[in-house]
Amino acid sequence: MEGRMTRIFLCLFLCFLAGIATNDAARQGDALNKLYFDVFNLKRAAPASAATSASNVFSDLSSKAYPQKGLKESDKISKLPGQPEGIDFDQYGGYVTVDAEAGRALFYYFTEAVSDDPSSKPLVLWLNGGPGCSSLGYGAMEELGPFRVMSDGKTLFRNPYAWNTVANVLFLESPAGVGFSYSNTTSDYGENGDSRTAEDSYVFLVNWMDRFPEYKGRDFFIAGESYAGHYVPQLAHTILQHNNTHINLKGIMIGNGAINDETDNKGLCDYLWTHALISDETIDAIHKYCNFSPDASNQTNQCYQAVGVVNQVFDTLDIYNIYAPLCFSSGVTPSPKRYSIENFDPCSDYYVSAYLNSAQVQEALHANVTKLNYTWSACRQFAQWTDSPSTVLPLIKECMANDVRVWVYSGDVDGRIPVTSSRYSLNQLNLSVKTKWQPWFVNKEVGGYSIIYDGNLTFVTVRGAGHEVPSYQALRALVLIKFFLDGKLLPA
Amino acid sequence: MEGRMTRIFLCLFLCFLAGIATNDAARQGDALNKLYFDVFNLKRAAPASAATSASNVFSDLSSKAYPQKGLKESDKISKLPGQPEGIDFDQYGGYVTVDAEAGRALFYYFTEAVSDDPSSKPLVLWLNGGPGCSSLGYGAMEELGPFRVMSDGKTLFRNPYAWNTVANVLFLESPAGVGFSYSNTTSDYGENGDSRTAEDSYVFLVNWMDRFPEYKGRDFFIAGESYAGHYVPQLAHTILQHNNTHINLKGIMIGNGAINDETDNKGLCDYLWTHALISDETIDAIHKYCNFSPDASNQTNQCYQAVGVVNQVFDTLDIYNIYAPLCFSSGVTPSPKRYSIENFDPCSDYYVSAYLNSAQVQEALHANVTKLNYTWSACRQFAQWTDSPSTVLPLIKECMANDVRVWVYSGDVDGRIPVTSSRYSLNQLNLSVKTKWQPWFVNKEVGGYSIIYDGNLTFVTVRGAGHEVPSYQALRALVLIKFFLDGKLLPA
Repeated sequence: MEGRMTRIFLCLFLCFLAGIATNDAARQGDALNKLYFDVFNLKRAAPASAATSASNVFSDLSSKAYPQKGLKESDKISKLPGQPEGIDFDQYGGYVTVDAEAGRALFYYFTEAVSDDPSSKPLVLWLNGGPGCSSLGYGAMEELGPFRVMSDGKTLFRNPYAWNTVANVLFLESPAGVGFSYSNTTSDYGENGDSRTAEDSYVFLVNWMDRFPEYKGRDFFIAGESYAGHYVPQLAHTILQHNNTHINLKGIMIGNGAINDETDNKGLCDYLWTHALISDETIDAIHKYCNFSPDASNQTNQCYQAVGVVNQVFDTLDIYNIYAPLCFSSGVTPSPKRYSIENFDPCSDYYVSAYLNSAQVQEALHANVTKLNYTWSACRQFAQWTDSPSTVLPLIKECMANDVRVWVYSGDVDGRIPVTSSRYSLNQLNLSVKTKWQPWFVNKEVGGYSIIYDGNLTFVTVRGAGHEVPSYQALRALVLIKFFLDGKLLPA
Repeated sequence: MEGRMTRIFLCLFLCFLAGIATNDAARQGDALNKLYFDVFNLKRAAPASAATSASNVFSDLSSKAYPQKGLKESDKISKLPGQPEGIDFDQYGGYVTVDAEAGRALFYYFTEAVSDDPSSKPLVLWLNGGPGCSSLGYGAMEELGPFRVMSDGKTLFRNPYAWNTVANVLFLESPAGVGFSYSNTTSDYGENGDSRTAEDSYVFLVNWMDRFPEYKGRDFFIAGESYAGHYVPQLAHTILQHNNTHINLKGIMIGNGAINDETDNKGLCDYLWTHALISDETIDAIHKYCNFSPDASNQTNQCYQAVGVVNQVFDTLDIYNIYAPLCFSSGVTPSPKRYSIENFDPCSDYYVSAYLNSAQVQEALHANVTKLNYTWSACRQFAQWTDSPSTVLPLIKECMANDVRVWVYSGDVDGRIPVTSSRYSLNQLNLSVKTKWQPWFVNKEVGGYSIIYDGNLTFVTVRGAGHEVPSYQALRALVLIKFFLDGKLLPA
């Protein structure tokens, strides 16, 4: 009964936030809405608890290793349409089958390191969240990839702070149904969830490493943001459980990630209050009348009313960067506008969508080979997300116990999964402080703050960055990934 | 004894913050540092309390009304060096003697409204804080005046969001010793304080209205920021007490203002924590060990240590806009840089200083007629600030009781006198909510939030604005002043 009440509450709570999604999507364009809207709106299969999330029993996935011969060569991208001259790294794009029987295949885009010797650099897998958002559209094209799309939707400009300056970066569109990834079994789109996402991603990795055998045993890191706060530790967990020696997992990094629903939700509300987006009366009501525990029941009308005010905030400003301008343009421009890597263009979603829906671009990427009956879009809203534990903290602990480096970071002007949430959630681990809270610096400016806990967990803030940290603070994000990969203290 | 302990504590507390001032000043240039550094570092004449601040007995100031004949005409500015063509309003600059015996004279810069009929527009007096900062350098040249200074320090560009599009705006450099204002009695510089600042400002106004008699009886408003949180209500109080019919005081407006030390200080610390600039441990120590009450004694070492961390934040980033870049250039550029009213240039202090220290500019402004033996600087640090009550809330109440419109606003990314402080301080008034907290809009974007309390007090936030609101959000600030002057609800 309690479990049912919880689900009803969460459902209603997120009817508000789903309403948000709808409104905002309508405002920003359905195909391009920037909302990782499902964090609260999950249909939980069962009242999930910390205890259940690390104890999954895994299927035998060995049958899903498929022949990869010759595929690497055919995945090589000779040139992306509109890319600038003088590109000094190799790029690949293509599909990896993760379930031949169902016809599930995941699309990847891979940018080798800019280096005389890419083999000296680690491999980083990047995952965007959602659930349902694209690592190609967001991660590669708006955040940390080597190119960003100009306002004409046709030409690319170089991102000098791309992460492939320090690593070989693999962008995965996951799970099937997201971006160019697909399933030939339509019902797969209706039954996605965390577990299959982790399993498919694991199978992807095993096959991808057969296709790119030089990366077997290479130092390997998983990074991602938002709902990838689930994907990243769940994939790490799957890797650890399967004990695959080819996958040399060294660390995971989660940015503005959903990691513990109760404290994430509480932190969200507190952040909105402390950032002067809701009133004293509203936060008082939330503190008094709402219970964000996964086992909560009997929420009051006062709670619903207060949560309705949170709804209004989501509806009126860009919650993913509470100080950013909105996009009001209806689409791409005939000729490219002046751009600046320092001032993220809030209309970038439109440019990326135009670019990735071009037939020439898809051909160059080796994408959409099955001629999907829908256009590429940045986020897909799955009808059902069948499983999502209320916390991944046990998986983070598991990583720590297995000597996997864990960094959690937060762009501090994101209101969706704000720095307050991440602090509250990590505090649930009750770790001792090893290196106290202190600023780190880039070009003599405070890049943010960091604190290191016993057990090799580092928490980092990125000053002035929204939900998609590298979109808003590209240089600071590059410093972050560099020091994460090196396992070093950020520059003081 | 308690009073003494308080002063010792405040003194030590502000030895930290004074250290800040020194460091930051050294970094940004002594003459141009942007610190309104004295808020905490006040030497109080006596333990001030709410009760004392509204009960001053006023001197008879009528003897300080001096002949003004012919002075208006000679104050008219024909043209400022480097100003753009097509200026459609009149400007004046000059001195008003406020104490003939001591030789104290205050410098003003007056920009009439851009209008076919300036006489239809109200009169707004603008005051910057400090104590010791210039309304000409900050208010007029970096915030709400008609011109801003280009990076060459020689040419001006038009501010399309200047407040003289809606009002006749009078900038006063106050008290004597600030900017071009001076005293021939050197000891005046050592004995400044709130009371004399209010009295001199009142005398200034009386004389200025004799010089500009068309403004007698005109709707009159006082606005100011930072430590002008003291000046504004104190001047309003002085006007109310003197019952001068020429000064038709309709409203006051205070931005990011010091209004109640205890809650301002608590709010500052909480803001730094909620904005992820200090650690959980530090805020816990501050909450546990510090007592910001004006009557507090026996502060602990733990409190001093925690406050030392606050010090470090002030020392490492621009506390006046916690997300803004710093200025690293050593001065003006040979030719003017591209400018944008939307992206405030953090090096503007240098351009303004160069401009205002030019002999031609001073001549055009009718400034520095006595050939001061120091250069114009944006802020002057007085050796002693002899009186400063710990709260001006009783004066705000007095305004409300006398039907003087009161608006308090806050740029929400200022860390110096942050929105948290203003909310805590206003909450001390225990007012009922008349119109609940809601967003206001400019060009379909959230300009901030507002709440109206019974008794005609409005609190407004300005989203994405630092301490000097019109510097960072010029358009939003213009909407703010327009609706304040009209006494209307901000646009929903």
